[in-house]
Amino acid sequence: MSFLPWVFAMSDFFERSLIIHQQLRGKMGIQSRMPIHNRDDLSVAYTPGVARPCEVIAADPAMARELTIKRNTVAVVSDGSAVLGLGNIGPYGAIPVMEGKAILFKEFAGIDAWPICLDTQDSDEIVETVKRIAPVFGGINLEDISAPRCFEIEERLQCLDIPVFHDDQHGTAIVLLAGLINATQVLGRSLTDLRVVINGAGAAGTAIAKLLRCVGHDPNVCVPVKDVIVCDSKGTIHAGRDDLSRYKRELLAYTNRQSLVGGLKEALAGADVFIGVSKGNLLTAADVRTMNPDSVVLAMANPTPEIMPDEAHAGGAAVVGTGRSDFPNQVNNVLVFPGVFRGALDAGAHTISEEMKVTAARTLAACVENPSADRILPDPLDRTVSPRIAAAVAAAAGLATED
Amino acid sequence: MSFLPWVFAMSDFFERSLIIHQQLRGKMGIQSRMPIHNRDDLSVAYTPGVARPCEVIAADPAMARELTIKRNTVAVVSDGSAVLGLGNIGPYGAIPVMEGKAILFKEFAGIDAWPICLDTQDSDEIVETVKRIAPVFGGINLEDISAPRCFEIEERLQCLDIPVFHDDQHGTAIVLLAGLINATQVLGRSLTDLRVVINGAGAAGTAIAKLLRCVGHDPNVCVPVKDVIVCDSKGTIHAGRDDLSRYKRELLAYTNRQSLVGGLKEALAGADVFIGVSKGNLLTAADVRTMNPDSVVLAMANPTPEIMPDEAHAGGAAVVGTGRSDFPNQVNNVLVFPGVFRGALDAGAHTISEEMKVTAARTLAACVENPSADRILPDPLDRTVSPRIAAAVAAAAGLATED
Repeated sequence: MSFLPWVFAMSDFFERSLIIHQQLRGKMGIQSRMPIHNRDDLSVAYTPGVARPCEVIAADPAMARELTIKRNTVAVVSDGSAVLGLGNIGPYGAIPVMEGKAILFKEFAGIDAWPICLDTQDSDEIVETVKRIAPVFGGINLEDISAPRCFEIEERLQCLDIPVFHDDQHGTAIVLLAGLINATQVLGRSLTDLRVVINGAGAAGTAIAKLLRCVGHDPNVCVPVKDVIVCDSKGTIHAGRDDLSRYKRELLAYTNRQSLVGGLKEALAGADVFIGVSKGNLLTAADVRTMNPDSVVLAMANPTPEIMPDEAHAGGAAVVGTGRSDFPNQVNNVLVFPGVFRGALDAGAHTISEEMKVTAARTLAACVENPSADRILPDPLDRTVSPRIAAAVAAAAGLATED
Repeated sequence: MSFLPWVFAMSDFFERSLIIHQQLRGKMGIQSRMPIHNRDDLSVAYTPGVARPCEVIAADPAMARELTIKRNTVAVVSDGSAVLGLGNIGPYGAIPVMEGKAILFKEFAGIDAWPICLDTQDSDEIVETVKRIAPVFGGINLEDISAPRCFEIEERLQCLDIPVFHDDQHGTAIVLLAGLINATQVLGRSLTDLRVVINGAGAAGTAIAKLLRCVGHDPNVCVPVKDVIVCDSKGTIHAGRDDLSRYKRELLAYTNRQSLVGGLKEALAGADVFIGVSKGNLLTAADVRTMNPDSVVLAMANPTPEIMPDEAHAGGAAVVGTGRSDFPNQVNNVLVFPGVFRGALDAGAHTISEEMKVTAARTLAACVENPSADRILPDPLDRTVSPRIAAAVAAAAGLATED
């Protein structure tokens, strides 16, 4: 009963969104930065004058960053195979999301992002196509591509000399880690001691497990999270299973050290943190009660979380976060991807390294001045966040380059 | 001597262009049309609300035109193989030209165009790539792709349900035809009676020959130009040659009816119109003197025309046009491509038919109120031209659809 008003509010968002999309017919457009008032302008912006910057770039393609849009552009690339909670709705259905992403890039980081919705879901073809269209872009943001294809595609695109970043993986993992850093601070605990259960072994779950391993990369700053157990729809991912994909097998190298066998409920018993990137309504207060005292529950299924906040608190959770804006502690990628790309573009980074991701998470965590159980993350619309992340990520990129 | 001051002016354009490109670092950018002031805006522009337009489009992809940028976008696609007069400078060197084109689309027709510079010059790969990135775009403008690859690429892309238009071919042909229509009016002659020599059998020359054949598609309006002879670097294109590519052989169906054998100079003797889409400084006044009296010389090589206007007039030419802004009768594609695409997008056209091209040429010709020998085309910056062409092209597209 408690979320009925919210259901009404949600349907209101849906209908208002449809109306606004009908009115705007495109949430974004092109803006010329060089007005053409007379023939002279035309001769400088276009022929014959434009031949000169063309020649300079032809002699040294790196000059494209100095003389064209390349130093500020990101392609938002999707094949429409895993759009929001809607699933495989294809490249046309994906356009409104990619436009939305593009305007967030502009709003929060001044980045000129353009939606590329691909009329193919073949991994080879996606990789080829992105490589071929790369020259104009300073970075590639992969979006809403289904797992496990998203892992292979991102991996193979690392051959490009511009950063390629799958936001559903790493954007989510970075916000999560930031939230977890502040949650442990609030609880007076250390990341080192935590036992974390991640439910969902798709794009986000896998990237979160990976980043929690990396959080302690620099032993002076932190040591890795003690234990991470990842569950998929068949239960814990452990060495005894013979149905694991390559990417799930890779998780075994740094998760589930005790080779715990069983379902999500078995995994939860004695855990400190639950991270849900799965489906709504999976857990009850009784399940949370099997976790250690003062547990952290980050239930990010949308629109219905794995467990509602009041239910989680009733089970003894001390800190609860969701993906929703109508509860405290909203986990929202918009806190991360604009700043991460801004920093990478500014630094001319060729890749977004694990160090840059951990730096982004630490910086995001530090954006909350006095973390409390109800405030482990900044407001998603806080405009001071992206510039801080950008500066830190650019500095981390510079360090990486010097190594 | 007479063009020395212009050489200085040119070098000035080049250097000023480089400086402006250095300052701007990108002549264009993205503009959000949906400001994000609060969480409510975020929920409508992005998640969760955006799911609703996504679902509507997933159910009927044609709705992308109603709910996204698709109804107003054009991809400006190049492989950098034939950029301006610079030749094959690759995809990075091409970016400043494609950006320039994009801002002209915006300035003259309100179209949101995005540069796509391809890191491949393989025709199959170009065709594949353009097909795969098509969903977001309402049209494809091919640009600076070398002949004969450009013909095959454009032809094979006609399978898309959006218009694909190689501007170097058809944009040039349309402006040329418009100029020719007004030149014949000034001279009190009929297109029917003309013998036209086209020097250059690349993208532009081939498209001009084709359009001159089509100009009389509707026999109530006009009949085709009597005779067209196309020359390449080896002389006239005639049936006796065994070195002709497929596209040059196709020209034989409607050019050089007398099978004239010889070089450009042989072809010119007794001709009424010279159209140069080749190299600078090819002709002298003496050559023009072998043409019929009151000849028309449209010498479009850039920056140095096939013959300078004073030289052509000295040879007896009555009307002279060039590609340059410092002489009368500038043949400039910016008079055409914005309006043609605006019309095609507004009509939801799937292709740009020969009828639409001829309509565009006639409308462009009619934009000059009182044509004279020194004014057969409007000023390239005349903002009234594109909307008139757009309306006419959209109407022609509508007729084509009804057929």
